[in-house]
Amino acid sequence: MKTGKEYEDSLRKLNLKVFLFGQRVENIVDDPVIRPSMNAVKLTYDLAHQPEYEDLMTATSHITGKKINRFTHIHQNTTDLVKKSKMGRLLGSLTGCCFQRCVGMDAINALSITTFNIDEKYQTGYYKRFLQYLEYVQEQDLVCDGAMTDPKGDRSLPPSRQPDPDAFLHVIAENDDGIVVRGAKAHQTGAVNSHEIIVMPTIAMREDDKDYAVSFALPADAEGISYIYGRQSCDMRKLEDGMIDRGNQHYGGHEALVVFDDVFVPWDRVFMCREHEFAGELVEHFASYHRQSYACKAGVGDVLIGATQLAADYNGAEKASHVKDKIIEMNHLNETLFCGSLACAGEGGAKPSGTYCVNALLANVSKQNVTRFPYEIARLAQDIAGGLMVTCPSEQDLRNPDTGKWMEKYYKTKTDVPTENRIRILRLIENLTLGTAAVGYLTESMHGAGSPQAQRIMISRLVNMEAKKNVAKKLCGIDQ
Amino acid sequence: MKTGKEYEDSLRKLNLKVFLFGQRVENIVDDPVIRPSMNAVKLTYDLAHQPEYEDLMTATSHITGKKINRFTHIHQNTTDLVKKSKMGRLLGSLTGCCFQRCVGMDAINALSITTFNIDEKYQTGYYKRFLQYLEYVQEQDLVCDGAMTDPKGDRSLPPSRQPDPDAFLHVIAENDDGIVVRGAKAHQTGAVNSHEIIVMPTIAMREDDKDYAVSFALPADAEGISYIYGRQSCDMRKLEDGMIDRGNQHYGGHEALVVFDDVFVPWDRVFMCREHEFAGELVEHFASYHRQSYACKAGVGDVLIGATQLAADYNGAEKASHVKDKIIEMNHLNETLFCGSLACAGEGGAKPSGTYCVNALLANVSKQNVTRFPYEIARLAQDIAGGLMVTCPSEQDLRNPDTGKWMEKYYKTKTDVPTENRIRILRLIENLTLGTAAVGYLTESMHGAGSPQAQRIMISRLVNMEAKKNVAKKLCGIDQ
Amino acid sequence: MKTGKEYEDSLRKLNLKVFLFGQRVENIVDDPVIRPSMNAVKLTYDLAHQPEYEDLMTATSHITGKKINRFTHIHQNTTDLVKKSKMGRLLGSLTGCCFQRCVGMDAINALSITTFNIDEKYQTGYYKRFLQYLEYVQEQDLVCDGAMTDPKGDRSLPPSRQPDPDAFLHVIAENDDGIVVRGAKAHQTGAVNSHEIIVMPTIAMREDDKDYAVSFALPADAEGISYIYGRQSCDMRKLEDGMIDRGNQHYGGHEALVVFDDVFVPWDRVFMCREHEFAGELVEHFASYHRQSYACKAGVGDVLIGATQLAADYNGAEKASHVKDKIIEMNHLNETLFCGSLACAGEGGAKPSGTYCVNALLANVSKQNVTRFPYEIARLAQDIAGGLMVTCPSEQDLRNPDTGKWMEKYYKTKTDVPTENRIRILRLIENLTLGTAAVGYLTESMHGAGSPQAQRIMISRLVNMEAKKNVAKKLCGIDQ
Amino acid sequence: MKTGKEYEDSLRKLNLKVFLFGQRVENIVDDPVIRPSMNAVKLTYDLAHQPEYEDLMTATSHITGKKINRFTHIHQNTTDLVKKSKMGRLLGSLTGCCFQRCVGMDAINALSITTFNIDEKYQTGYYKRFLQYLEYVQEQDLVCDGAMTDPKGDRSLPPSRQPDPDAFLHVIAENDDGIVVRGAKAHQTGAVNSHEIIVMPTIAMREDDKDYAVSFALPADAEGISYIYGRQSCDMRKLEDGMIDRGNQHYGGHEALVVFDDVFVPWDRVFMCREHEFAGELVEHFASYHRQSYACKAGVGDVLIGATQLAADYNGAEKASHVKDKIIEMNHLNETLFCGSLACAGEGGAKPSGTYCVNALLANVSKQNVTRFPYEIARLAQDIAGGLMVTCPSEQDLRNPDTGKWMEKYYKTKTDVPTENRIRILRLIENLTLGTAAVGYLTESMHGAGSPQAQRIMISRLVNMEAKKNVAKKLCGIDQ
Repeated sequence: MKTGKEYEDSLRKLNLKVFLFGQRVENIVDDPVIRPSMNAVKLTYDLAHQPEYEDLMTATSHITGKKINRFTHIHQNTTDLVKKSKMGRLLGSLTGCCFQRCVGMDAINALSITTFNIDEKYQTGYYKRFLQYLEYVQEQDLVCDGAMTDPKGDRSLPPSRQPDPDAFLHVIAENDDGIVVRGAKAHQTGAVNSHEIIVMPTIAMREDDKDYAVSFALPADAEGISYIYGRQSCDMRKLEDGMIDRGNQHYGGHEALVVFDDVFVPWDRVFMCREHEFAGELVEHFASYHRQSYACKAGVGDVLIGATQLAADYNGAEKASHVKDKIIEMNHLNETLFCGSLACAGEGGAKPSGTYCVNALLANVSKQNVTRFPYEIARLAQDIAGGLMVTCPSEQDLRNPDTGKWMEKYYKTKTDVPTENRIRILRLIENLTLGTAAVGYLTESMHGAGSPQAQRIMISRLVNMEAKKNVAKKLCGIDQ
Repeated sequence: MKTGKEYEDSLRKLNLKVFLFGQRVENIVDDPVIRPSMNAVKLTYDLAHQPEYEDLMTATSHITGKKINRFTHIHQNTTDLVKKSKMGRLLGSLTGCCFQRCVGMDAINALSITTFNIDEKYQTGYYKRFLQYLEYVQEQDLVCDGAMTDPKGDRSLPPSRQPDPDAFLHVIAENDDGIVVRGAKAHQTGAVNSHEIIVMPTIAMREDDKDYAVSFALPADAEGISYIYGRQSCDMRKLEDGMIDRGNQHYGGHEALVVFDDVFVPWDRVFMCREHEFAGELVEHFASYHRQSYACKAGVGDVLIGATQLAADYNGAEKASHVKDKIIEMNHLNETLFCGSLACAGEGGAKPSGTYCVNALLANVSKQNVTRFPYEIARLAQDIAGGLMVTCPSEQDLRNPDTGKWMEKYYKTKTDVPTENRIRILRLIENLTLGTAAVGYLTESMHGAGSPQAQRIMISRLVNMEAKKNVAKKLCGIDQ
Repeated sequence: MKTGKEYEDSLRKLNLKVFLFGQRVENIVDDPVIRPSMNAVKLTYDLAHQPEYEDLMTATSHITGKKINRFTHIHQNTTDLVKKSKMGRLLGSLTGCCFQRCVGMDAINALSITTFNIDEKYQTGYYKRFLQYLEYVQEQDLVCDGAMTDPKGDRSLPPSRQPDPDAFLHVIAENDDGIVVRGAKAHQTGAVNSHEIIVMPTIAMREDDKDYAVSFALPADAEGISYIYGRQSCDMRKLEDGMIDRGNQHYGGHEALVVFDDVFVPWDRVFMCREHEFAGELVEHFASYHRQSYACKAGVGDVLIGATQLAADYNGAEKASHVKDKIIEMNHLNETLFCGSLACAGEGGAKPSGTYCVNALLANVSKQNVTRFPYEIARLAQDIAGGLMVTCPSEQDLRNPDTGKWMEKYYKTKTDVPTENRIRILRLIENLTLGTAAVGYLTESMHGAGSPQAQRIMISRLVNMEAKKNVAKKLCGIDQ
Repeated sequence: MKTGKEYEDSLRKLNLKVFLFGQRVENIVDDPVIRPSMNAVKLTYDLAHQPEYEDLMTATSHITGKKINRFTHIHQNTTDLVKKSKMGRLLGSLTGCCFQRCVGMDAINALSITTFNIDEKYQTGYYKRFLQYLEYVQEQDLVCDGAMTDPKGDRSLPPSRQPDPDAFLHVIAENDDGIVVRGAKAHQTGAVNSHEIIVMPTIAMREDDKDYAVSFALPADAEGISYIYGRQSCDMRKLEDGMIDRGNQHYGGHEALVVFDDVFVPWDRVFMCREHEFAGELVEHFASYHRQSYACKAGVGDVLIGATQLAADYNGAEKASHVKDKIIEMNHLNETLFCGSLACAGEGGAKPSGTYCVNALLANVSKQNVTRFPYEIARLAQDIAGGLMVTCPSEQDLRNPDTGKWMEKYYKTKTDVPTENRIRILRLIENLTLGTAAVGYLTESMHGAGSPQAQRIMISRLVNMEAKKNVAKKLCGIDQ
């Protein structure tokens, strides 16, 4: 298993084509806008070497029997699934942001199921190929971007009937060595911190769309791949002097548009090619896993709750009954989220390949709550934090003696609370509810792993309404 | 294990002193008001003999190694705890009401922990006594009423300072053979269908209150015990001709006030006597277990969701997008409840006696949601059901040819839906949202196993706020 | 203006054909099940004679210039509309139930607009006829049932294509003297306490449905009209000995199915006959007025809030911060409802006939909140009331010395609170949240004046989305 | 009345001491960070000259009888109050932000009541002085900052017992010419765009605090006053090239810390000086008026709803039933807010000075909803907008041909929707839900005019609980 330092070094050796604010970025690892997101991924390496986190952060490879980072592991039982949920919460609670590495874990687990299933039907060799690739990922301890979301163009049309045929990523050529693909993947979390990009289709496909039913893995710096870095609320604060106003001093997340401009993929990296009837199941498995992954938001919630309690302490409001009650409510909602992540894991089961997958109904239910509760937790945090969170002058004003003296004097609350600490904690709450981390804690909670309506459709499909209706009939005396 | 028939027969042999509507009830088993609640308990016996339910409904005694009804089992691992949650949902989903038997199960599990702990400190013999009693319960397959809630009198005063010393049940005399107790237990679910009453204290006690720190078990028909049966919304419908208007034709629940008028308890049935410092932990363990038990409400929710879907089908509204969306929301909330029950079970752990107890934080979180979501599910059910649920004339009007012809004609919707079936399903929804079952599905969900504020206090005690504050400080750069 | 006594006497002179629990009711005024609903209507007469209520309860007829009961008034300005909202809240706050008389008021106001508009187009004489009829209603101070809701049969079909042509009320014959109608009106609030039935169509109609586009008024005891009385949760308690268990000792509401079995209507009582294109506007005006009328629920909310505060006082919980906060929330929601009723009235405007009508958008918004907030207020009331509300034995048990002594002893809280008073207030809360009054406070709040989805459709039609879109475009720099 | 141009010119003549990002700002009018907030105030001048807005934007001075800008008007009747609510919504709906001028209007109205009342008790001459000052404000058509919120220091201590005596603004010296004050006002909306600062105390005061009971007006550039400009989420985007990423191209709001460093106030500008018992009423009147003023948020809601509908249109999702339903919900909540603003205005009444004040209970209820609904509206907006709102690269990337071509291609939806327009509308939604405008739409909605708990306390004080309890007792038969 790599250390964090080794991970950082390995990134430096990649030659990614990244654009940010209209410029090509030469050194992505040290870029001040990108760096915090790299730090968050790096922590997934460092913690795996700490004994107190070993149980959650590592696992035993079912291929090699070696100890591996859990992010590269195929879940072998429900205990693995539960540990995945707990690992997510742990990392969220230590970083206060999206640490980006779960998409790759969810991609390899989903592929381990579907490549096996395709082989069963067509006697293809995808599963064996996939296991070879997986062993490489485990041995090298790589970060993989699980890339699913296509731009989708006109949402009323299937891939093959789009005005622009590239609205969904597809195979445009094929030869003995491999295939050539064109298209893009949008909203790619952590893409720029990844060694590998694992591409999957984004929706169920029909016969007509079969060129779009394609899955493969490539090095992140393969020829023809470009990254355009997404901007976030308050991203420019990372370019300012001073650290306070960025809120979270250490960690962040990012998303990028990843463009595949006629990229070649050798056959040994291809895991699905035109088996369109398997696109849907791959999407559903990935989605179920990834909906479970939002356990991390309970961890980010821990940070926001802690920050809010500190803001109350610093304001001298910590004993007010309404403040205590609101913090209870924040914790209640946050733990309800965690219950969902645990329950869908505990109710998971084995697929034909032996991979354990979460209970899909409960994973969808869990994610649906993630589209709601963080917003209410954030609202309550803003309630307790008070208005200074959005009216406080900048750190430069605090540092300027002419204005800093007034800020020190007039933002003082209790005598034993340094004014600067009060400002620091308010900036962290701002970061989580309006700033760069709000992107992950709120909007990504809404849309990541599928927007709310996607989960609602799945819930309606997965509940057994006939059984419920039959009991109702019986109880009220309707003959059946 | 007894069959349902054997259970019913065993009840007939008891000589309970039960009052209902101002009268002593001679035959409680066949009384039309009480009968449906007995039927619900009876089902817990019958299902244990059906192979498809065996895994959930039975367990292996850790004392005798024999197969026993799970309701008499001491949880040996988290799998047992998870099965308990699933058994609760199953029974709720088959009866559409409170089946009453979980209070006894929760009482014996809590006592198995606390009697052991008292012995550890005082070298008393409670645990051994308790196991002997438990073996009797398992062998005879008995229903136990776990009786905790005291009347409590003036809520601002402790037991020993109440104007009426009997506001909390207490020991009033003691001799070589046993103790004499006086007091009452209020809101006792299923008391009248029980073979045994297991009494526990209701709050943490101080030295002054030690006469109130008492736990014991007695046959339900012991000398000096009286039951006054609580009335429920729409209870009189069970005395009317016709079955439709009662909604649920088969099952119900009940609560009673149980009075202990100077009742003698032999020492071998006493499990705590004046060890006041253990009262609090017994209450907390029982409360945690019992908060988990509200998994049953997800089962009752299944019935209400099924009935609501049928009402939509019968009204011809089942394809309206807003109807579909509301049913999804009902399912979503219902499954969120289930997630809580599963999660607190899965995160349970062993106590010194070896008994497994649920995760207390998550059990409180789960119950807190139970005080909310059933109300919203019921509101949505009423939305979809339509106003006829509360304006429909009586079954007698349907049977009277002069009026029945108009009801048949004007309450007709689709040609293939018998009007009577439409009325039946609406009466079931009325039963669950306003009638006898609403008592269990709504108000008992609010107050059973502790009112909402009790859970909120526990949540605030059980979360680790210091850990959350420390990470927040670290992330925003506050020196610690 | 009649006194309450005169109103009651006038009802005795009617010969209504009413069925209840499978029997014809001979004396509707003194029937114990029906009586409380008559009492509530009666109060609308008595209050009009009390000076402190005169401003709200009376108005000056725009026809005769005489002082009349406001329930028979045509709104002449926005002040009238605002007073109507306040009158509704007043009556709800004094009765704790539905007082039933607003449907007639809303019907005459809607007809005053539409009969005028039909005349404008077709030079019919409906408006003049209507004013003559109105003068009779004002002079005699009559209660009118505004009867709109048809049974509707298969909801996917229009009136003229129903399998049963009577699923919507319609004209089946016509001669020089008048018309003959057949059909029914369901869920008719207060029908059995009315002197007159004013029939209106229930939906917009097309040419094919023109026989269904009919509006008229008839004496409530006209030949061929039958009433089948709807049953309510806990209605049988009104037949028991004792008064406590019914909760509200004085007032109630009711709904009935009103059947028109080939009923003759003379031309001078016909206000619309086959002018199908006006059916929709009549429905919309009535619906807007009637959605405003739910101001009464803020009044019922006042009663429930008062009862809940008393329950807290009697339980000794009135100083707990969570109790105070919940009562604030109940008041907040209740006053938010009132704001809606006031706002739609204040923003009303004149129609061509001179009648003032409420702002339709805000009336729909207001009613939409009525479909939600009473449920939450009721939930909070149950939270504060405690479980005894649903587990308390019957009044007969309280009166029986053998059991009454225990109830007195064990349901005692503070020494200065009579146990019976505690039970009385809990029974009132039960009445409002589960019992006969819950029908009006909850389910009727949901469906009366149109179910929630009906309001949502109106909201979507009435907001000016183009204006909102244009400003958004302008602000973000999109050329238009 | 000034034009917008004249207003801008008048600001240029002021010599305000403003600090921003650690620097003194030389030209506040043209500073790119400040400018949008000036534009919003400027619109309040320009609209007053447009005939279609004249009715809402202007009024007739009760002092001079001249036409004046309504922002300088003393409300003379409930119609004035209702027009104030409508003016607020209008301006919010045209600017999509806080236009800052209501604080001054609310301050002069509150002072017109309290100066009159002080005079009544003490025969002081404050009211006359105030009217002279008001006439000057009306004649010159000035923007006034109504400055109430003190820093407050340790919230558990009153002003006179604070460790730092300046934690509340107070009189430190007095002579024949006037008084000298020291302290600060925090979170001052629009301070830097104001001609005048009107200071008021922030809480009710006791005898000991009388030096803190002070109210006065000063020119904004009076000697000794400094402004430290508060930073907002995404404020730096106003310094970037390109306009798209700022979302709202034209308007914004701001808050500042205003420091009074021993500032002299001549007696003719002093409106309260040590009459401590009137501090509370001044605060309450200002608070009630200002809680009404949040009508503006319904206007900002209009912009967000329009933007969200456009995002749905551009995404091709406008016909999805869940999208339509969510937009209905946004409108429903937004109009519910408006109902509150209208209702508290319509129910207003005259104070002894003749000034009309809103109904305080309903104003608090209305504001309480403002602390909730905008958050839910924003959440729904983010739901419909989709994830691109937070993952879209910068405008610079769009302008760079190497990356812009990919953005054009892959962010394309419908063929007739320019990709740039789609990005523009998403940036506007980002602005309103996470960016500079979120400060006003969300956090200021929470805390402006008092945090939620302040309103809850007022609601509990203003409802008539005794009346509610008495009716409840009567209805359930409790003797009184």
